[in-house]
Order: sequence, then structure tokens, then C-alpha cells
Amino acid sequence: MRMYDVITAKKRGNELTDEQIAFVVKGFTAGEIPDYQMSALLMAICLKGLNMRETTTLTMEMARSGDMLDLSAIHGKKADKHSTGGVGDKTTLIVAPIVASLGVPVAKMSGRGLGHTGGTIDKLESIPGFRTTIPADEFIRSVNDMKLAVAGQSANLAPADKKMYALRDVTATVDNISLIASSIMSKKLASGADVIVLDVKTGSGAFMKTFDDSAELAKAMVTIGNNCGRKTYAVITDMNQVLGRYVGNWLEVREAIEVLRGEGDEELRLVSYTLASYMLLGCGIAGSIDEAKRMIEETVASGTAFEKFREFVARQGGDVSFIDNPEKMRSAKLETPVYASRGGWISEINAEEVGMASLLLGGGREKKDDTIDPIVGICVDKKVGDRVFAGERLGVLYANDQESVIAAGKRFQAAYKYSETPVPPVAPIYGYVDENGVHRV
Amino acid sequence: MRMYDVITAKKRGNELTDEQIAFVVKGFTAGEIPDYQMSALLMAICLKGLNMRETTTLTMEMARSGDMLDLSAIHGKKADKHSTGGVGDKTTLIVAPIVASLGVPVAKMSGRGLGHTGGTIDKLESIPGFRTTIPADEFIRSVNDMKLAVAGQSANLAPADKKMYALRDVTATVDNISLIASSIMSKKLASGADVIVLDVKTGSGAFMKTFDDSAELAKAMVTIGNNCGRKTYAVITDMNQVLGRYVGNWLEVREAIEVLRGEGDEELRLVSYTLASYMLLGCGIAGSIDEAKRMIEETVASGTAFEKFREFVARQGGDVSFIDNPEKMRSAKLETPVYASRGGWISEINAEEVGMASLLLGGGREKKDDTIDPIVGICVDKKVGDRVFAGERLGVLYANDQESVIAAGKRFQAAYKYSETPVPPVAPIYGYVDENGVHRV
Repeated sequence: MRMYDVITAKKRGNELTDEQIAFVVKGFTAGEIPDYQMSALLMAICLKGLNMRETTTLTMEMARSGDMLDLSAIHGKKADKHSTGGVGDKTTLIVAPIVASLGVPVAKMSGRGLGHTGGTIDKLESIPGFRTTIPADEFIRSVNDMKLAVAGQSANLAPADKKMYALRDVTATVDNISLIASSIMSKKLASGADVIVLDVKTGSGAFMKTFDDSAELAKAMVTIGNNCGRKTYAVITDMNQVLGRYVGNWLEVREAIEVLRGEGDEELRLVSYTLASYMLLGCGIAGSIDEAKRMIEETVASGTAFEKFREFVARQGGDVSFIDNPEKMRSAKLETPVYASRGGWISEINAEEVGMASLLLGGGREKKDDTIDPIVGICVDKKVGDRVFAGERLGVLYANDQESVIAAGKRFQAAYKYSETPVPPVAPIYGYVDENGVHRV
Repeated sequence: MRMYDVITAKKRGNELTDEQIAFVVKGFTAGEIPDYQMSALLMAICLKGLNMRETTTLTMEMARSGDMLDLSAIHGKKADKHSTGGVGDKTTLIVAPIVASLGVPVAKMSGRGLGHTGGTIDKLESIPGFRTTIPADEFIRSVNDMKLAVAGQSANLAPADKKMYALRDVTATVDNISLIASSIMSKKLASGADVIVLDVKTGSGAFMKTFDDSAELAKAMVTIGNNCGRKTYAVITDMNQVLGRYVGNWLEVREAIEVLRGEGDEELRLVSYTLASYMLLGCGIAGSIDEAKRMIEETVASGTAFEKFREFVARQGGDVSFIDNPEKMRSAKLETPVYASRGGWISEINAEEVGMASLLLGGGREKKDDTIDPIVGICVDKKVGDRVFAGERLGVLYANDQESVIAAGKRFQAAYKYSETPVPPVAPIYGYVDENGVHRV
């Protein structure tokens, strides 16, 4: 087989065979297919497309290009969730203990954040003592004992995807649904869960700007997952503003604790409960979404979900006194309010800009080796639909130095857009996708 | 400017600006734009196309990427011809002395052949003593003195094209009319002629298999040439069989001599005269093609064209006794007839296969450093439209060893296709292209 012929076939709009796709992924991962041939193929794929069979095969081959985690030693159906990336997205910290408290094993390998804000691992590491580097046997034992463990990704998951993504990033071949879907799903397949729930973010702060684009991506991912024998759902959620009220690693842990205690932000609760519901449904713990929601409300109201989070933190070495008493955490040196530059109804909060403001405060990473300050971040008081007067407080920056406050404050202020007329609040959930297709809500 | 944005623009089907095209050609030639970005752009170009403005700009930028030959020291309008590549194509050896004998300066930089058969330089070097390495001042002086000089290409012509072609060759991005046209024309523009006549070969033995494809390529090249201030014509000629009767370096020189003496193959004469006519028309020596043809017939009939060839050979150090007496040349060790494997009317002679047979005999180069044996080759007795009986002679192989004869004989035999019913002879010329468009004849 020759790469030249594979490129020619796709350039002509022909379907690639499973053998051709396997040849490409193996050859490229092994360094036998040079970048310049791969980028020609990627461009042909962007312009001629891949059908679902090709996309599924590509995903499976990328998943198989590295380690495939073996979670067979864990009893029961394992569930995983994945978000396409949003600002203020702390749902994993809420969803994982909820479903674990209801008997669903969650064995989560999580990455660090690169970009505006920290990832789940960064958030958990803001809890004093919390360990995210866990030997494999201890990881498995934890899940069997108490249904929940979260570890930093140490395995070599889908290296083909990593290499391909780096090339796509510099050759303008990122924005193709099949390539995006296979990139995300290859890592999920390699991570070994039986049930996968995807949170596809939509709006100004997300990669997908419209419902239709998000639905197309969600549908592709759900089809791939189901084709590969994993029960897969997607929930299409809003990213036209920050999710919840807080951005910043420790601030987000504290907000998650509030929700686990039955308090906190309503929209964050709705998104978290919905994601958790699909995990329960997929694992067969609940027979319907309504039943799942009732179970979730109960496990939160009874304190069982919060207790599971406490147990999880303790098991991974975290100091639970900070969970019981979040106020115990040291304060940021500066707490600086930010005021509205004008009056009106808030029509949009560019979440990406809020994320950049948090990054400027030291809450995110620009480069792999940057260190994160766990306590800096932003509290967002005013959200879309709120009416504000010029000079009214929009939020608070938690910072360690005056210089970063000035830059971040400007950025945060500029993230707000206003309307002269009333604006309805944003619905946090736009729709969901299951094996029967896309459903708008 | 960023290459990423240029790739994105073409991927979306947008027109590239002159600045963007200049940026790409300069950056790629300088090694600042990596191959993997260039191949992504080339694939986007193959699938989204370039319009004539973009194609013209690309051609000019590639021409400017290296040396631009300065022929201003040569008096009068300089003419050049170029063939897209055929087997048995010795027209340059005929056309150049004809037009030079009528006062058109021909300053030809020619390449060596790579592939089945030798190039013009290889053919001329089969004449004992002939020198193709000539200092620039001597080259110019020869053209001013006697209107004709042919030298091996020593200048660094269109290096951007060379580098881009090497990448296209391995990324399945060769077959795009704009890229093919700009590749050919960039070298022609850099070679400095005022009038360019293109011989676009069509058929089983050519890159372009159909009249329509050839016409499209021809039209693109003629438009580029005229856009760049060079009077440009294209003639669309047949390559469904070998041109003329001989393939092989010295054999082709001998056949050219026959035509210059008013003898030889009728189709070869027709193609040569037509190409020469357009050169005369473009330089303003003739007012019409009919007038040009009459002038050509006269210069051949009077012996002036042959005399010009003799003079040219002598001036470049060749032994003219071989021109006056071609039989003087040593013979190949073996002269082996090849017989028809079956009877019928000959419907096609795959010229590429005949070229490969000649290569097997030692008449062409597979690799750059291969040496060519000037006297080996093939005489083609039977051509399309001829009726043969099984066992009748198709042609003769001129070879130096028995082993190559067997392999070449099989290949030559297999190049012939037969019909049970009569087949008309092939018309050697299909059409021409001038500034007014494509004309089928």
C-alpha cells in the first residue's frame, strides 16, 4: 500500500477502506509517513469529508495507536464524561461524586488544562494534600472500594491523535467534524469506560459557535461511541457566558461543594444533574432521565453525594477540613471589584475573554510548564439577562498583584456586551443526542 | 502574513492576493515555509482551484525565484518552443534550424531527458564532438552570428518550481491545470524568449489523455504567456503513437536530418512545420500561418534549413561529416526485427511503452546519473491505421546485448493494439490555441 494512492483516493472523493485508514494511522504514528503527505491527506479530508464508517475506523485506529486502558478489574459498568471545553466548567467535580454515590464506578484519567483555565486535575490539586499521581493498582482498588478515583493521565493514550492534532493545528485542517470527533473519541475509547457522556459546549466561548455545528459534532461522536460498543450520549450546553459563578481552580472546587450541598448556582446544578442523569441511564442504574433526576436530587438532599466527595478527597490524600470549611483556605492578597462600564441589559459574556482574564491573574497556563496559582480567579456576579447600571459591580477579581489586576480587569469588563432592551436569561441546556438522533429542548 | 491564513483562505475557496502568492513562493523557496504547510496549500489548490490571475501571479513569482535569463544582447525577437513530452519527439532539431534559417533567433537552454528517452541535449550529444556546455558570452555571440545556439541548462531557473514539483510528486497534487501550467511556463518565462510556442501532446503516451484536457492546459499556458507579455501559442498534437519512425538519440538526429532534407516521415514534417509556423508568426517574420508554411517549404527545398543545421553543428564542435553522411555512424551490435503477435489493423501504439522499450535498450535514463547509449533505439515500421498479418515485421530494435533485446522486444510488441476492422490513420495535429481561444482542426 502507498500513501500516495490513499491521498489520491480521498482527493477524488472516494471512500477509504479500513485497511487504508489503518495503514495511515500506523504509518504516521511510527514516523514512516512524513508530515507533508499527512497534511495533504488531512486537507483532502477537510474538503471531501469522511463518512461515518471511515470516521469510526479512524477513531478506533487512533485509540489503538497507544495504550488501551484495561478497566476489566473494576466491577460494573464504568462511566466517563467529557466536555469539549468551557470556562468555569467544574461539572466533573459535581457529577463524579453524584453518580459514584449512586453506585456507578467512575475511573477518571484526566488531563491538565492548557489555555485559559485549569483542568480537573488542576482544580483537585488546589485542595491541600490532594494527590493525582496514583499507581494503577491503587487506582483500580479505589474505584472498586468506593466507586471513584481521578488520576492524572500517565498512560500513552492515542499518540496518533496527539501527533495528528499538532499537524492539523499548523496546516489549517482543524475545523472538520470527523477529525474533531475522532480526536476526542479516540482518547475516550482508549480510556476504557463503557458509558460515555459528552458535554458539547456551544456559543461565543466554545469552539462550536452554533447549535447546528454542535449538534453535528455531537451526533458524530455519539455514533462513533455506539459503533464501538460504548453507550454514548451528548448534551449540548451553553457557552455564551461562564458556567456558574466562579472561574479559578480553588474557587471552582468551592462552587462544586456548594452544589453538592444542594446550594449554589442553578444553571450549574441543571447542567451537572443532566450529565449525571445520562451516566445513570447509560449504566442502567436508572430506567429513564426522570427517574435518574429524582435519584440525583435524593442523593444530594440526603448528603450522600457530598459525603462521597469527602471520602474521595480523603482517599486521595486531600485535607477534608478544607472541604468541610472552605473559608479555611488562605485568601488572595487582593480582592478587587470590577464595575460595569455602561448600563443596560447584559446580552453576552464572552467566556473566552473571562478565561483570558483568569489566565492573566495566574489561574491558567499559556505553556505546558507554567505554574498555576490555585487561589486566584474571578467571581461573576452579573450574568446574561441581568440589568445593570453604569458603575454597578460586575464581579470580583481574586489576585496576588496589582499589575495583573489591571490587565485582567480590562479584559473582564470588555467581555460584557449590553443591550438597550431587556434580554432573556440564557437556557443552560440546548439539547441532547442519543442513538435516535438530535433532540432540541 | 501567516501561511496558516493563506491555507485557510484557499481552503475556503477564496482568491489569494498577489501578496499572498509572493509570500508563499518566496517563503517556500527560502525554506521558511515547511513542506507540510505547502502540501496542505497545494491540496487546497487542487480541490478549490486557482483563477487565471492567481495562476499568472504564481507563474511569475516562480520564474522570479531564480535566475531570469537576460537575452537583451541578442538582436530581434527571440523564439522558443516547448513540448509537454512525447516519445520520438525530435521536432526541436527540425524546427530550430528552419526558423533560424528564416531569421528568427533561437537561444535554447535545454534539459536532459529523464524517463523513457533522451532530451534534446542528449540527442545533440550523439553527434561526435558536439558540445552543449557553452559559456554565456559565446552562447549570445553564436545566436547573434547565426541565429541558433542550444546549450545545456546551467542557470538556476525557477528553483521554486523545482522544489514545489518534488513535493507535488509525492503528495498526489500533480494533476491540476494551474499547477502544471505554472510549472512549465515559469521556466519558459525565466528562459527569456519573446515568443513561446508550446507543443501540447495528447493521448495514451502523454500526460494529458484527452483533447479537452490538453486544450484546457494549452489555454492556461497561452493566457499566462500573453499576460506576461510573451507572444504565446500552443499546438495540440497526437501522442497516441510515436511521432515519426524512430526512437533513440542518434536515430532521431538522423530522422531530423531526413526531414530537413525534405524527405522522411510525413506526420513528423507536418508537426514540425506547424510549430515553426507559429514561431514565425509570433516573431512577425510571417503575416499568416499560410505565408509561414510557404516560407518553410522554400527554406527546406532550397537546402537553406539543412545548411543552417550543418552550420549550427559545426559551430558547437560537432563533426559535420556525420550530418552529411549519417551512414558513417557505427552500427549497433544487434539489429533485431520484432514481429506482430497477431493480425489486424493497428489501432494504437502506446508511445510510453515504446519509450520504455527504448529505455531497456539503454537509450534513456532511469536515474539522473545513468549514461545513455546514443546509437541504440527503435525503428517503428508499422503505425496506426496500417494493416498487418501475424508474423509481419512491426519494427527493428538497435541494441548492444541480447538480454535487453528480449525484454525490449516484448515491451515493444505489447505496445501495439489491433482491431478486426479498418482503422483510419491518426491525424497528427488536433488543434491550436492563440489569444482568441481554442481552435480544433
